[in-house]
Amino acid sequence: VPAFADVQALVFDVFGTVVDWRSGVARESAAFLAHYTPGADPAAFADAWRRRYQPAMEEIRSGRRPFIRLDVLHRENLEALLPEFEIDPASVLPSQLDALNRAWHRLDPWPDSVPGLTRLKRGFIIAPLSNGNIRLMLDMAKRAGLPWDAILGAELAQAYKPRPEAYLRTAEALMLEPEQVCLVAAHNGDLAAARGCGLRTAFIPRPTEHGPEQTSDLGPEEDWDIVASDLEDLTNQLGV
Amino acid sequence: VPAFADVQALVFDVFGTVVDWRSGVARESAAFLAHYTPGADPAAFADAWRRRYQPAMEEIRSGRRPFIRLDVLHRENLEALLPEFEIDPASVLPSQLDALNRAWHRLDPWPDSVPGLTRLKRGFIIAPLSNGNIRLMLDMAKRAGLPWDAILGAELAQAYKPRPEAYLRTAEALMLEPEQVCLVAAHNGDLAAARGCGLRTAFIPRPTEHGPEQTSDLGPEEDWDIVASDLEDLTNQLGV
Repeated sequence: VPAFADVQALVFDVFGTVVDWRSGVARESAAFLAHYTPGADPAAFADAWRRRYQPAMEEIRSGRRPFIRLDVLHRENLEALLPEFEIDPASVLPSQLDALNRAWHRLDPWPDSVPGLTRLKRGFIIAPLSNGNIRLMLDMAKRAGLPWDAILGAELAQAYKPRPEAYLRTAEALMLEPEQVCLVAAHNGDLAAARGCGLRTAFIPRPTEHGPEQTSDLGPEEDWDIVASDLEDLTNQLGV
Repeated sequence: VPAFADVQALVFDVFGTVVDWRSGVARESAAFLAHYTPGADPAAFADAWRRRYQPAMEEIRSGRRPFIRLDVLHRENLEALLPEFEIDPASVLPSQLDALNRAWHRLDPWPDSVPGLTRLKRGFIIAPLSNGNIRLMLDMAKRAGLPWDAILGAELAQAYKPRPEAYLRTAEALMLEPEQVCLVAAHNGDLAAARGCGLRTAFIPRPTEHGPEQTSDLGPEEDWDIVASDLEDLTNQLGV
């Protein structure tokens, strides 16, 4: 791939691209929901929790709030979400909410993620460029066996994607020019922001990230430098 | 070990504790010295380069300079060092000095480091808490097989040890209280600073870090929480 001649590092979107957050959060929430609101759908709970993700970060991107790590935003969003599922937040111990909040630390990778990353690591620096915080990414990697060379991303950059600082400070920490770094993501918007900062771009579709009726990000919406069917196909295309 | 009941993360000094910087820098400098100043002793060159390490960081600790990553300080120190070895800095291409500067990225671990860390990783979060910058630690880990869970330390903290911020911001990034984190180091001064911040402490001697005539840090100088002969012995004492 010609655009890749100078690429030394592959940085990855994680939620949706490397791990299946919807199934994982649903699984981790099921026992809680069964206790507090029998009959609620854990996948709907995961979707509702995730719907509050972008608005919470937008408060920080806009400058209305200082940078706060994602674990805190997830926890706030969880508490705000409970009434939607007819749970009184005051009826749940804070320690139970803390434990449930760590669902995001216990997400399973897609089947190709660990074998793909393990091979990609031979030829490139590999690191998350996620909005997830360091401890979240660390716990996830340790549990799932994601073989990152380092944990980079929003907390190091003190900025949430798609703010340019998230991409540029990640390249800077790697002591690389933006064009020596490629973002791998299942989200066209993330790739567009990375390209706007000069990074290379690789798209892989994750057509069930949002469940069986997903309508967004089913395919590439720009001429990304690489389009691969999954991380193993990416490995093959890059010849590592 | 009772003081360790709550410890979740082991963070490591790296230069001297995990890797043998003196032999590595000497090895990586030998060809350069043979070309520019035949007869010079590579180990003496490594020692002279390292002698400039603390004074360079002290400019930043004192606030006289803003935080700058260690690769830049090493590069400045290298250039300042050349006349001591009768090399005219103007006679060497900047790209050659850049390449030589990366000697610090290519240091070998002590023999017990990789097996010890691999076992410790099963029971604890393990990460460097080094004054080395992220890219330096990353390159070193990738080459040597150091199985870090994340790369923490001075660049993330934007502060050099033994400034308290280096220890406290590392614990903060791990979302742990200081007493849930243990510094492992071969240097009594580093451990004293960590203890001052509330971290647990583990000493392992590296009696040839400075060569066969080393006189400092040959043994523990305080009642550190653990004293082990090397990282494998530490693993045994911690029961992982």
